Amino acid sequence: MPDTAQMPFNTTRVRTLTDLRSAVAALRDGGRTVGFVPTMGALHDGHIALVRHAKSLCDTVVVSIFVNPLQFAPTEDLDRYPRDEAGDVARLQAVGCDLVYLPTPDVLYPKGFVSRIEMTGPALGLETDFRPQFFSGVATVVSKLFNQVRPGVAVFGEKDFQQLAVVRAMVRDFDMGIDIVGMPTVREPDGLALSSRNAYLSAEERAIAPNLHTALEAIRDGKTTIDEAKAGLVAAGFGQIDYIALRDADTLGEVTGDTRARRLLAALWLGKTRLIDNIAA
Amino acid sequence: MPDTAQMPFNTTRVRTLTDLRSAVAALRDGGRTVGFVPTMGALHDGHIALVRHAKSLCDTVVVSIFVNPLQFAPTEDLDRYPRDEAGDVARLQAVGCDLVYLPTPDVLYPKGFVSRIEMTGPALGLETDFRPQFFSGVATVVSKLFNQVRPGVAVFGEKDFQQLAVVRAMVRDFDMGIDIVGMPTVREPDGLALSSRNAYLSAEERAIAPNLHTALEAIRDGKTTIDEAKAGLVAAGFGQIDYIALRDADTLGEVTGDTRARRLLAALWLGKTRLIDNIAA
Repeated sequence: MPDTAQMPFNTTRVRTLTDLRSAVAALRDGGRTVGFVPTMGALHDGHIALVRHAKSLCDTVVVSIFVNPLQFAPTEDLDRYPRDEAGDVARLQAVGCDLVYLPTPDVLYPKGFVSRIEMTGPALGLETDFRPQFFSGVATVVSKLFNQVRPGVAVFGEKDFQQLAVVRAMVRDFDMGIDIVGMPTVREPDGLALSSRNAYLSAEERAIAPNLHTALEAIRDGKTTIDEAKAGLVAAGFGQIDYIALRDADTLGEVTGDTRARRLLAALWLGKTRLIDNIAA
Repeated sequence: MPDTAQMPFNTTRVRTLTDLRSAVAALRDGGRTVGFVPTMGALHDGHIALVRHAKSLCDTVVVSIFVNPLQFAPTEDLDRYPRDEAGDVARLQAVGCDLVYLPTPDVLYPKGFVSRIEMTGPALGLETDFRPQFFSGVATVVSKLFNQVRPGVAVFGEKDFQQLAVVRAMVRDFDMGIDIVGMPTVREPDGLALSSRNAYLSAEERAIAPNLHTALEAIRDGKTTIDEAKAGLVAAGFGQIDYIALRDADTLGEVTGDTRARRLLAALWLGKTRLIDNIAA
């Protein structure tokens, strides 16, 4: 029997693969469809929008909360990444999530784990230029979570646009038979994209941060060039700009004559916090 | 509807993923279990033993025949690898195989394919020292075939002992939930392990080939050392010896104090043909 903690709205919490499989089998009983939203926790309204959308598409929804060590470099913020299990579960309960999966690292990567997914295509460039192991870590853990949950639909945010493209390519390439749904980025009223890492920002940095979205819109609207926008962001107080790049929205490669839609993507530093954002362009 | 060719014993042939999925869904109807034997065709009695065993374990059996370009180096025998679809299908029909899947390379690797599985652990050393991309190619195609067929059980021969260990590790690491069953190597009366590549051997080479198995038995029984056996094989007419190595049968690493079972593995050349074999030791 799963080690479950029953809560109002019948949200079940599981931590092991055995309990997850029992609980998902129970959810699926009678042919109910299963939607899935993988997260790293520290849930904000952007995540909740994904869960609500999954609820609208499927009979039941599973959310995983796992801060995946495989996608962090040793120099990155794995240890200080925000964690709030109680708050996260309360939010998921309020929105009617059926099952929360909270594995520990040893559940996903037991002793003797020796496998990774490696990708090119949309995984090349952009984030990969600055976080070389990132998408291998993401693809590997998402593949595992997909095999563990076996959802019909999984919902991801467009905030991590390159990640969404990588997951779509992985599902297609490995014939996983899961419908990947992307959802628009949820923003603060001043335009800042919601992100768990926004919690790192000081009050001063938080006041500067919306300039990123404003700059992307200005580039999109032809009011400034990428180089001018970069100079303006540095003048506003941003640190290193990893990239601001206009790409083919499907391949994430260079824009070509075959490009059907374009995407403007950015990653840059504000103090000790790395922010990413993107918009259609 | 699948593009099927009905034959005696109701063996169905499919070539596309859509037809495969329809045909497997029909096989599975009513809760019947599905066993799977992935092959590269040129079927011999060793393959047929795998299919028979899968039949004994499951209600229905699917066999794939696909010469996987991803596991061949440019210098290897992809183009001359033996192919005999009509003969293979007749043999599968005779043994009561329910479904034969015969995809073309573009079905498994359509334009834009960008993903691979990369492994360490049992994939390190031995074959990998001589065929660096081999297990990545094997793991990637087997993972795809598993996702396409979704069997409960898959049966592999111990002839490719390292491959069996790699597939077991992959299924465990990616939580594929498939029972991997290994079957003992089937041999000619003179001890030569059955292999599709035996078809390459000249009459003279065929007469020399059983010396490999004899040498492995002599090493296992302490009648000779590995180095002496290598010298004897060269004297008998073999060419380059890629490796003859005693390993831990579970990890395929060096034998240690924790080793529970040992395996003696070999790969070597006889004329233009590369032979592999292994035995418990």
